[in-house]
Amino acid sequence: MKAGPSPEEIRRHNLGTLLRLVHLRGPSSRATLAETMGLNRSTILALTNDLTAAGLVREELPRGPGRRAGRPSLVVRPESTRVYVLAFDVGVDRLAVARVGLGGEILDRREATRTRAAFDTNEMIGALAGAARALERKASRGAVCVGAAMAFPGTVRRNDDVIRFAPNLDIGDVSLGDALSRRLGLGLPVAVRNDANLGAIAEHERGAGVGCEDMIYLHGDVGFGGGIIVGGRLLGGQEGYGGEIGHMVVNPGGRPCACGALGCLEAEVGERTLLSLAGRRESADMVGRDAVRAVVDAADRGDIQARDALHRVGDWLGRGVANLVNLFNPGMVVFGGTLRDIYLGSAAQVRSAMATNALDAPRERVKLRTAALGDDVTLVGAAEHAFAEVLNDPIEVLARLRSPEPESVG
Amino acid sequence: MKAGPSPEEIRRHNLGTLLRLVHLRGPSSRATLAETMGLNRSTILALTNDLTAAGLVREELPRGPGRRAGRPSLVVRPESTRVYVLAFDVGVDRLAVARVGLGGEILDRREATRTRAAFDTNEMIGALAGAARALERKASRGAVCVGAAMAFPGTVRRNDDVIRFAPNLDIGDVSLGDALSRRLGLGLPVAVRNDANLGAIAEHERGAGVGCEDMIYLHGDVGFGGGIIVGGRLLGGQEGYGGEIGHMVVNPGGRPCACGALGCLEAEVGERTLLSLAGRRESADMVGRDAVRAVVDAADRGDIQARDALHRVGDWLGRGVANLVNLFNPGMVVFGGTLRDIYLGSAAQVRSAMATNALDAPRERVKLRTAALGDDVTLVGAAEHAFAEVLNDPIEVLARLRSPEPESVG
Repeated sequence: MKAGPSPEEIRRHNLGTLLRLVHLRGPSSRATLAETMGLNRSTILALTNDLTAAGLVREELPRGPGRRAGRPSLVVRPESTRVYVLAFDVGVDRLAVARVGLGGEILDRREATRTRAAFDTNEMIGALAGAARALERKASRGAVCVGAAMAFPGTVRRNDDVIRFAPNLDIGDVSLGDALSRRLGLGLPVAVRNDANLGAIAEHERGAGVGCEDMIYLHGDVGFGGGIIVGGRLLGGQEGYGGEIGHMVVNPGGRPCACGALGCLEAEVGERTLLSLAGRRESADMVGRDAVRAVVDAADRGDIQARDALHRVGDWLGRGVANLVNLFNPGMVVFGGTLRDIYLGSAAQVRSAMATNALDAPRERVKLRTAALGDDVTLVGAAEHAFAEVLNDPIEVLARLRSPEPESVG
Repeated sequence: MKAGPSPEEIRRHNLGTLLRLVHLRGPSSRATLAETMGLNRSTILALTNDLTAAGLVREELPRGPGRRAGRPSLVVRPESTRVYVLAFDVGVDRLAVARVGLGGEILDRREATRTRAAFDTNEMIGALAGAARALERKASRGAVCVGAAMAFPGTVRRNDDVIRFAPNLDIGDVSLGDALSRRLGLGLPVAVRNDANLGAIAEHERGAGVGCEDMIYLHGDVGFGGGIIVGGRLLGGQEGYGGEIGHMVVNPGGRPCACGALGCLEAEVGERTLLSLAGRRESADMVGRDAVRAVVDAADRGDIQARDALHRVGDWLGRGVANLVNLFNPGMVVFGGTLRDIYLGSAAQVRSAMATNALDAPRERVKLRTAALGDDVTLVGAAEHAFAEVLNDPIEVLARLRSPEPESVG
């Protein structure tokens, strides 16, 4: 139990709050910022000047249409091209790397598809680092990279970013972040986080869940991940493993799951089960999102086996969501990745299973939505995580990044 | 996104923090408080003086043994007998009311057993109010009641304390708090909260979970409730219904639950199921904790049917806990109420089901514990909830309570 903050801590908090506002909500006038933050205009002016001097924002006339008559007021705009992060997204079927500017704009990106059979950690790290360096070379002079983070489809220990469990990638107990950081050679750590956890942050801050302080994000890749926002913050639990929704057992004695248990939500709802129920074999050229979409499209066209498969999977999905509704009383549940398509193809079954299995009180007002950020949801989440440090303490972090490391002197 | 606090807000925060420290940790020297709060001694002196003037704490020589040689330093002690709350605990089988002093001491209490058949809301409110008035009469002159709260075995809407669902008490959509507050006539609202939610707060602040910021409390009465602490705070969800762990479906198609679903944790693990599996009938003189203890005792003495019943129930309990471990990555799971005895009688089955159904990473370090506060866990939780307001803003709340209401003037 700590005492309240010092004046210097408050100043840093306010600098971070202002920067976060223009980062998340876009260019804003000082008047709007003053009103939103509940501060007077002279304080906002001082904060803006500090952030401008640090190269994090600039003030300029609003761009584009919609300007009113008379002298328009200046807006505070994030320095998107001068301040950026590197975001890495490791999917089971694809790799993506992006340079994302302050304000959230994806400035540049590289993508590659992967084949599931041949997974090699070194090769992956090499591919990610190569793509990142290519992006770096195209950054404007004087631009500064303020963070890097990776979305990964596995269970990641918070303290040291070690991957503890990633059944769909056959990798275990390694620190991918350290390895990538060394290969990048930017002097920056690369944080590694569970992809669905980052997807939850992205949808909460920039997607369907903006303004919803209690929401659950469900992410389908080959596996089934989750991220849970409680009171506006990601539920990490004691060691960062929280949100393993895919391994909630919904059907004891059911289908075997890669984790060793039977009847996990992932086993009953995952891509492989859907394809198998729909009578389709996994093939090298038809996996992942495309394969799932093909089943949903077939069901739409009247393919009975595809429709039954979707309905069966949707029933388990609804049972899983019912449990989450009883446990978390969320305001919203968001379906992303392949679960977006699965939900759209089985919404009636999902709702019916929820009606049977969830209590009325928490079920009545929960909204079901699809991810607004589409296929970029986990990549955007990685970028948001990479921005976290500079948004918490903008001036300090910028000063550190722009000055030589004390260790490297002498 | 708000700016940092004003100096006045910081002062109030610090007053609350100091009062909370002596409330939860007991009498403390100013030196200890200064160190814990990270403030200098003159600030601590000023805060202590303000709280002393408001009648919330006093400074005195430490009591009892353990005093060292030389001049002992003064300790700041909560005014336990002058500042208190009323705590109400509605169980399916009993009612309890207590006057609880600042610092957490139960100063005085009344209890009554109830028969399950005859539930009448008015009668219950009358009994609670009568007991509370009897306690009030024995309070010392000048003592002030700073809050009141009720633990209730049902789903309670946070905004208006309306009971939404209480299948074990045949009551619905009423505001018990308003009714009790009117009957008490103290000019104080009575907050009503789910009993297991309050039990979680109690175990987190004063019981097995002190210092554990991510913990889950499971409470067995006739039903099966839960309270979930995430990052040090109770998970309430959008409307306060969060933590309905008893209605997580663990066995689809299983035993019918009072909520209408099949195979809820409550239905598979609850008192009625245990008694039925153990071949015992519910009877008027053997229900609740006594009946559950009798089954556990019988199993200990070699009663095979009792032992098998416990093992079967323990397996489902372990499956439920496994799901919670995967979802929340808690540092601790605490078993209270009748679940304390059920867990003690089936710990091997619980652990075995967890090993099969939970991921290694979140399971490895989770501690399983029994409630340290015993049968008073929900009563203590109600008291802590009742103290919340005065601990958030001590001076303001005391001033309001001690001065006549503005509305009643003129």
